[in-house]
Amino acid sequence: MTKKITEQFKEEREALNEIVMKYASLNVKRFYNLDTRVYQEGALSSKTKELLGLVASLVLRCDDCIKYHVIRSHEVGVTSEELEEALAIGLTVGGSITIPHLRRALQAWDELSEGF
Amino acid sequence: MTKKITEQFKEEREALNEIVMKYASLNVKRFYNLDTRVYQEGALSSKTKELLGLVASLVLRCDDCIKYHVIRSHEVGVTSEELEEALAIGLTVGGSITIPHLRRALQAWDELSEGF
Amino acid sequence: MTKKITEQFKEEREALNEIVMKYASLNVKRFYNLDTRVYQEGALSSKTKELLGLVASLVLRCDDCIKYHVIRSHEVGVTSEELEEALAIGLTVGGSITIPHLRRALQAWDELSEGF
Amino acid sequence: MTKKITEQFKEEREALNEIVMKYASLNVKRFYNLDTRVYQEGALSSKTKELLGLVASLVLRCDDCIKYHVIRSHEVGVTSEELEEALAIGLTVGGSITIPHLRRALQAWDELSEGF
Amino acid sequence: MTKKITEQFKEEREALNEIVMKYASLNVKRFYNLDTRVYQEGALSSKTKELLGLVASLVLRCDDCIKYHVIRSHEVGVTSEELEEALAIGLTVGGSITIPHLRRALQAWDELSEGF
Amino acid sequence: MTKKITEQFKEEREALNEIVMKYASLNVKRFYNLDTRVYQEGALSSKTKELLGLVASLVLRCDDCIKYHVIRSHEVGVTSEELEEALAIGLTVGGSITIPHLRRALQAWDELSEGF
Repeated sequence: MTKKITEQFKEEREALNEIVMKYASLNVKRFYNLDTRVYQEGALSSKTKELLGLVASLVLRCDDCIKYHVIRSHEVGVTSEELEEALAIGLTVGGSITIPHLRRALQAWDELSEGF
Repeated sequence: MTKKITEQFKEEREALNEIVMKYASLNVKRFYNLDTRVYQEGALSSKTKELLGLVASLVLRCDDCIKYHVIRSHEVGVTSEELEEALAIGLTVGGSITIPHLRRALQAWDELSEGF
Repeated sequence: MTKKITEQFKEEREALNEIVMKYASLNVKRFYNLDTRVYQEGALSSKTKELLGLVASLVLRCDDCIKYHVIRSHEVGVTSEELEEALAIGLTVGGSITIPHLRRALQAWDELSEGF
Repeated sequence: MTKKITEQFKEEREALNEIVMKYASLNVKRFYNLDTRVYQEGALSSKTKELLGLVASLVLRCDDCIKYHVIRSHEVGVTSEELEEALAIGLTVGGSITIPHLRRALQAWDELSEGF
Repeated sequence: MTKKITEQFKEEREALNEIVMKYASLNVKRFYNLDTRVYQEGALSSKTKELLGLVASLVLRCDDCIKYHVIRSHEVGVTSEELEEALAIGLTVGGSITIPHLRRALQAWDELSEGF
Repeated sequence: MTKKITEQFKEEREALNEIVMKYASLNVKRFYNLDTRVYQEGALSSKTKELLGLVASLVLRCDDCIKYHVIRSHEVGVTSEELEEALAIGLTVGGSITIPHLRRALQAWDELSEGF
């Protein structure tokens, strides 16, 4: 299988963010900045922070956000075991309603892992 | 129209669940088991339980979950009138924000009903 | 224990609905009407409909709505077994985040059951 | 680029609403009526009301609802600045989880604006 | 009746925000700043912006946020008719699940209006 | 200040869980078990897991769940800096609507920290 899902996501995200920036005021830009800063290494590691973003995205059931944090988790060296344990917490907190998103999270992860 | 939506859904769900099981720990498997058990005939009938799952899915606006319970409701013999009354409760509880999901719920139901 | 929780809820609800009606336009009144009609006996029984309202309220985590449907479920003759099975579906669909509401649902139910 | 997204949305919405009406009881029809009435010019202008509907749809993250109110906002003469300020409120209230929907909102708006 | 609800809310909010600031990093402070800026007069009036904040808070069912925007709406001169029309949109979009919050919104508004 | 909030919470939680267990079927008990297991030390540390639970609770805006994970985070040795960074992610993901819950999270944390 080609890297369809994650690659497609990145391209679409890029293209649409350009449209956002065409209309964005200073406030929207400030939000985008903040959204980058909170994930930067600090008292907590990047790994932990990406998993926090991932679980928050899973329980809020946002597929695009999930894909983003799955990709980032992969980049910062999260292991399959760590990812699974984080997702299991999200599943338990958020309930069966998160299962379709859990499926797509692991589909994206599987795609990235196959890439090794 | 061919049985596109519901058939496609079942195939995709199957394929992705296989990926989930590739990574799933005992905890995730326990959750999947529980998710089957709570819908089993008991003090409440399967029909009532599927409608409970359907309305919960509608107000939480989860299309995949809705499709699943629409298919199951059809299998256990829910009538169009019963389904509509359950959905009307979900619509009133959840508001106009559920309308796009109501549309897709009835699209799937219509597809299954035509199958008769 | 006195019937504190459910009685208090009914009084407060009554008092606040009077304030709502002081400001309500025809549209808000129409919504209130609709909210009564969808629970009326039809193809589905009142019992089933109250349980649908209860589970929808549980997964959306609305304590007041839960209390209302617990009281109504008690009035239309739902048994403890039926209530528990409905709540178990809500818990599984909505996840551990519903547990505090499940607790308060059963606290209200317990209070009403003791009344017998 | 052709007016793909907004046109496609309108056609699909129309087609699915026909299926809804095939099954709809009086209660569902009443809800649909109410859903039209609350946006009618009154003490608040249509413009303000469409923006209220848009921000509510953004924070509840309903893409179809967002598209609908973006189209309606365009029809009643909302400017890009007004739309952006409304969306910035929605983004701040609803958080980064609304960003994928913000992107698609502005994609639809951009499509409509290009149409001039 | 004394101005209990709105006054109590303001005091508690103040006291807890002090605790937040005791722990807040630059990022949290940036968020607080942004949360002030998006409601400032611009292409849209303060009145419209407060109503956008109010409806967003209603559909997300956040009582504290609702109280805050009800108080602010009162300060910037929103009328009872305007408030009611905004709330009617929130009720329709968000469903009966918002009714308990609608009640408390109008209770706070009634308290403030009596103050005249 | 006495340890009011967190102590009160623990007592109430205990008392209500007893009522839950009075009515709970095997399925509800299974869910409770699972809800304990997913937070056990594994590939991820208890500290990370409690923070995952905390952020999930913040973005879903469940005060009781937040209090529980704040207490647990304190027990497993999370520092104020770590907690703040986790909450800042939750705030950014979930938006200003989480602020009232952020306030109460830090109020509980402050109470526990003063206890040293």
